[in-house]
Amino acid sequence: MSNILTHTTKLKVQFHECDPLKIVWHGNYLRYFEQGREDFCNTHGISYLHAEKYGYSTPIVSSNCEHKKPLAYGDQFVVETSFENAAAAKMIFNYRIFKEDVLICTGKTVQVFLDQNNELSLTNPEFYQSWKSKMNL
Amino acid sequence: MSNILTHTTKLKVQFHECDPLKIVWHGNYLRYFEQGREDFCNTHGISYLHAEKYGYSTPIVSSNCEHKKPLAYGDQFVVETSFENAAAAKMIFNYRIFKEDVLICTGKTVQVFLDQNNELSLTNPEFYQSWKSKMNL
Amino acid sequence: MSNILTHTTKLKVQFHECDPLKIVWHGNYLRYFEQGREDFCNTHGISYLHAEKYGYSTPIVSSNCEHKKPLAYGDQFVVETSFENAAAAKMIFNYRIFKEDVLICTGKTVQVFLDQNNELSLTNPEFYQSWKSKMNL
Amino acid sequence: MSNILTHTTKLKVQFHECDPLKIVWHGNYLRYFEQGREDFCNTHGISYLHAEKYGYSTPIVSSNCEHKKPLAYGDQFVVETSFENAAAAKMIFNYRIFKEDVLICTGKTVQVFLDQNNELSLTNPEFYQSWKSKMNL
Repeated sequence: MSNILTHTTKLKVQFHECDPLKIVWHGNYLRYFEQGREDFCNTHGISYLHAEKYGYSTPIVSSNCEHKKPLAYGDQFVVETSFENAAAAKMIFNYRIFKEDVLICTGKTVQVFLDQNNELSLTNPEFYQSWKSKMNL
Repeated sequence: MSNILTHTTKLKVQFHECDPLKIVWHGNYLRYFEQGREDFCNTHGISYLHAEKYGYSTPIVSSNCEHKKPLAYGDQFVVETSFENAAAAKMIFNYRIFKEDVLICTGKTVQVFLDQNNELSLTNPEFYQSWKSKMNL
Repeated sequence: MSNILTHTTKLKVQFHECDPLKIVWHGNYLRYFEQGREDFCNTHGISYLHAEKYGYSTPIVSSNCEHKKPLAYGDQFVVETSFENAAAAKMIFNYRIFKEDVLICTGKTVQVFLDQNNELSLTNPEFYQSWKSKMNL
Repeated sequence: MSNILTHTTKLKVQFHECDPLKIVWHGNYLRYFEQGREDFCNTHGISYLHAEKYGYSTPIVSSNCEHKKPLAYGDQFVVETSFENAAAAKMIFNYRIFKEDVLICTGKTVQVFLDQNNELSLTNPEFYQSWKSKMNL
């Protein structure tokens, strides 16, 4: 079976997200990615609050965004968030933003697991491993 | 002696703070006020971290901003933050932003004290009362 | 008949909107108000893009927010945006944010009309007066 | 002589830049990079306003950030912005953020030149080529 889990979030560009070039300020795409990721995580039962409940935080250690086309004020778009199954103790998500069928940008974020002492977890925390098993990942 | 303590912070408008009208998005003035307030508080030894150390948080319960003139990308300006001595258990600050000698906007924020149980403190916490005494307020 | 037009927008608190107190940073309520206002305006055919088409911009000259209760990460809430019929050439909106039936905050914004020369319009622009007539305001 | 131009900007973490984990929200590092880049550009006479004057905009087409350590509220840090001399018609900047001598993160942004018709410029605009010559790049 497929190792790819994908979730789609519909959003609309807000006025305060646009810059003097009348397009979405590039840094705001990380907000859209976050919104897509959280939507994915809530849908699949693996949210930030889950991690916190088990004593872990999941800070982002790497992010990138490749812009193909701009988004402007009022544009409606979708964030497609895909889970990438990693061998290491990391949560990796890939993103694609589309306006109708036009690819606006792609991106990726990598998160690690920190325990209650802010120590990096070198193996998957149990709650995360259970989730992966449940999802057949 | 004067009951007014004032502090001045110099700032410059950043690109991402401006909107499609090519002026600072109105909500960003609350950031400038915060920067002015924190500057004031650090200078006078009464910062957020002080409050936290004594078991209090100081959430904002009221804020407003009256705009006279816009600020544009690259503008240099000053935030003038003034402490208003309140009888009640509140921290009140008034703000004026100037670009050269032109008044850009005025504003006000009100903060209350919450203890470790998130209960509203009806009297000034001791650490705050001590600070006021020290400042002759 | 009623002179009050109201529109309701459903939103959810995002992670990046929260501060170290684990609640929504106070300045972000102005984003929620904007989202409510634009939703209202798009629904009733009087958006920012309408104004722009007729040669006007509608900057905010006054905003305020009174906080009753905090919102935390993941909270779902509604922004209730109400149009206040003003005699002067101003657009005034009042806001109330609710989480379930609990009032979280109230707020108000005032906008003026600037023409293409950035001159303040002392009377209602024609496009706006037409809209008001159409809405029986 | 060296082909590397570097500029250093001193900043301080603001309260509203921090998230519920009490560290700077990852997306805000793009603001710090922007502040460093604009500082660089103003210092070296090649700012956004220069580009605009000559009929060009310089949107960001790629950005990334690799996080090594977090920054927390109140931390003072420096953004080191370095110009990377590219053969293609692109402006490339690399960033390193340090807190005292500790490396906090690294990053990179790539910008292209769009002319007044929003067409991608395949060669360096004249104003940019002149600047490069002047800088011996």
